[in-house]
Amino acid sequence: MMLPNPTLNLSGDRFAVHYRIAATDEARQLAEAVCLEQTVEFPADLVPSGDIRQKIVGRIESLEPVGPGVSEAVISYAVETTGFEFTQFLNVLFGNTSIKPGIRVERFTLPESLLSSFRGPRFGVAGLREYLGVFDRPLLCTALKPLGLSAADLANLAYHLALGGIDIIKDDHGLANQAFAPFEERVKRCAEAVERASRETGRRSIYMPHVAGPVDTVVARARLAKEAGAGGLLVSPGLVGFDTMRLLAADDSVGLPIMSHPALQGSFVTSPANGISHFALFGQIARLAGADATVYPNWGGRFSFSQEECGSIAEGARVPMGHIKPIFPTPGGGMSLGRVPEMLRFYGKDVIFLIGGGLFQAGPDLVANCRSFLATVSA
Amino acid sequence: MMLPNPTLNLSGDRFAVHYRIAATDEARQLAEAVCLEQTVEFPADLVPSGDIRQKIVGRIESLEPVGPGVSEAVISYAVETTGFEFTQFLNVLFGNTSIKPGIRVERFTLPESLLSSFRGPRFGVAGLREYLGVFDRPLLCTALKPLGLSAADLANLAYHLALGGIDIIKDDHGLANQAFAPFEERVKRCAEAVERASRETGRRSIYMPHVAGPVDTVVARARLAKEAGAGGLLVSPGLVGFDTMRLLAADDSVGLPIMSHPALQGSFVTSPANGISHFALFGQIARLAGADATVYPNWGGRFSFSQEECGSIAEGARVPMGHIKPIFPTPGGGMSLGRVPEMLRFYGKDVIFLIGGGLFQAGPDLVANCRSFLATVSA
Repeated sequence: MMLPNPTLNLSGDRFAVHYRIAATDEARQLAEAVCLEQTVEFPADLVPSGDIRQKIVGRIESLEPVGPGVSEAVISYAVETTGFEFTQFLNVLFGNTSIKPGIRVERFTLPESLLSSFRGPRFGVAGLREYLGVFDRPLLCTALKPLGLSAADLANLAYHLALGGIDIIKDDHGLANQAFAPFEERVKRCAEAVERASRETGRRSIYMPHVAGPVDTVVARARLAKEAGAGGLLVSPGLVGFDTMRLLAADDSVGLPIMSHPALQGSFVTSPANGISHFALFGQIARLAGADATVYPNWGGRFSFSQEECGSIAEGARVPMGHIKPIFPTPGGGMSLGRVPEMLRFYGKDVIFLIGGGLFQAGPDLVANCRSFLATVSA
Repeated sequence: MMLPNPTLNLSGDRFAVHYRIAATDEARQLAEAVCLEQTVEFPADLVPSGDIRQKIVGRIESLEPVGPGVSEAVISYAVETTGFEFTQFLNVLFGNTSIKPGIRVERFTLPESLLSSFRGPRFGVAGLREYLGVFDRPLLCTALKPLGLSAADLANLAYHLALGGIDIIKDDHGLANQAFAPFEERVKRCAEAVERASRETGRRSIYMPHVAGPVDTVVARARLAKEAGAGGLLVSPGLVGFDTMRLLAADDSVGLPIMSHPALQGSFVTSPANGISHFALFGQIARLAGADATVYPNWGGRFSFSQEECGSIAEGARVPMGHIKPIFPTPGGGMSLGRVPEMLRFYGKDVIFLIGGGLFQAGPDLVANCRSFLATVSA
């Protein structure tokens, strides 16, 4: 049988993806392979010559060497290839090409016709500031840990952290629904404890539980969290899927700020030649998927992101993307109070500082340590 | 405040993860960091000295150099740290450590107390053979493409492929819910076409639509597919999340065989020092998440997996894992009819051969090409 050669009624709108290709001489051949792989996944000589070849197959908009053995290709795709669904957008962006070493997604630009399919962050920087009533300084965040404490113990910890003035007290991302601190009991106790401390301090602190678990329970857990008085949600898209974060952000019955955690996403960024850039993954994609804040390991902590990579995440968190709001970069991962002044200079005030264990290490009085954290940031 | 030091009532059951660490002299220090990172995420000197330190923190069971500059650490974790939920199991396995370059998950072994939380594949090798009535040869699979064809055109293609004797006719993973071939219309037309051809040939071919899209629609799409007569589902856990595949496999109202596609999972395996091994990702994890067949690019096609890596996937697809059934390795990605004899020798008969574009390239008569494929495999 002959393959049909249909005429397609497309808008002409295209979105563009910047790929880093670890090649120069062979770069065009590799870029052409991306154009096919991400769309028709068909041998070039068999692709029907009409609209499928002209409009569906990716198109190389530019291709330039950008360093020794490295090129950048800008490839555009018809917006209709995504079906205007987030999962398929990710598929066209990098689905099969993720399996090819030496090709990395650096950034992308989406026309309004595609952006309008995505609600993005419900709060963003301005909305989260309004929600917390903090306008002129970075926000403070810490994590409830270690795993193994009971719900009552975690709530007591949360109470003291809120008493010390921490804005956002989140679950450690290792807290799920373990028997020693079951989700429902933990959320009720911690939300109550943080509310109680907020009444005492006269400042609003919020509790953000980690909403993980079976995907068919995630929305129910989020609603339960809201009813219990949680002020936001911690979501790990690497564990539950990016689209599950998008769903939670878009659900009006939930309507809480969302902080995205990088668990299980590291493999996208551990090799500079492969995967997805820090800018695109923790900035652009996190925003499209509805995060209001994006957690990542700051340079100089337990992890290995460079200062430049951290800066690129902050840039991806605020780069103009139509109606998609800018969000808070949230550097953490082994930070200490001593690092705050340097981070302030680097990030400016539109940042959330996440200090976990470091708050305990700063001295024996946890509440005093929190107040010192707040004072340093407010200075 | 002092951190509590609770007594925990744990079973003593632990699961073990084999990590490849790109170090020898510093390997112990890195392994100890994994033990903390994957559990308490807390500075070692602050971890409460009782059950949290003794039972919750990961435990190094062995640590040995296995090559120049490379060690293997076997680290065990209390089964209770997972909360017996798949998302949190993945988190303990590799959540934050995924962000640390030079550490890779090679394989894992789970005790029955943890395995029993997961249903795994509904069919597996034996079940899928029974379902299709094919017992003595590899199964044949091909993909409907290219993107841009209408639902009617794809159905016509599916009809001819089934007429030629292909067992499993799946959507290309780029087919989602695009306007030119909307999910519902496509599934109805293609399922009908494959059933019609099956009646004509007297052999059972099945159609497997790609069930992607917003996570809150995935189960509904799967049910719609079943009602329309689809014989299985293609699922891309990199796009919809591993737990969504698990959910589809476990849902008795769906109850169809599932084929897992590697889209957007490539970054886990593109660097030998980082990520998750082919064995664990496309073998063990795919099985735990309910796949009956695991698609990956064979060596020597458009992608770069080595023969050894492909063999390790086949091994991961059948390695004993309690009640979790063995599944079909499904090599594809630029295969041709000419490669079949070599692949038969390598994989044996418990394999699904996935040939897409190559079926069109083999000659002008698509039905004849399919029959030739079947004849080669049956010989």
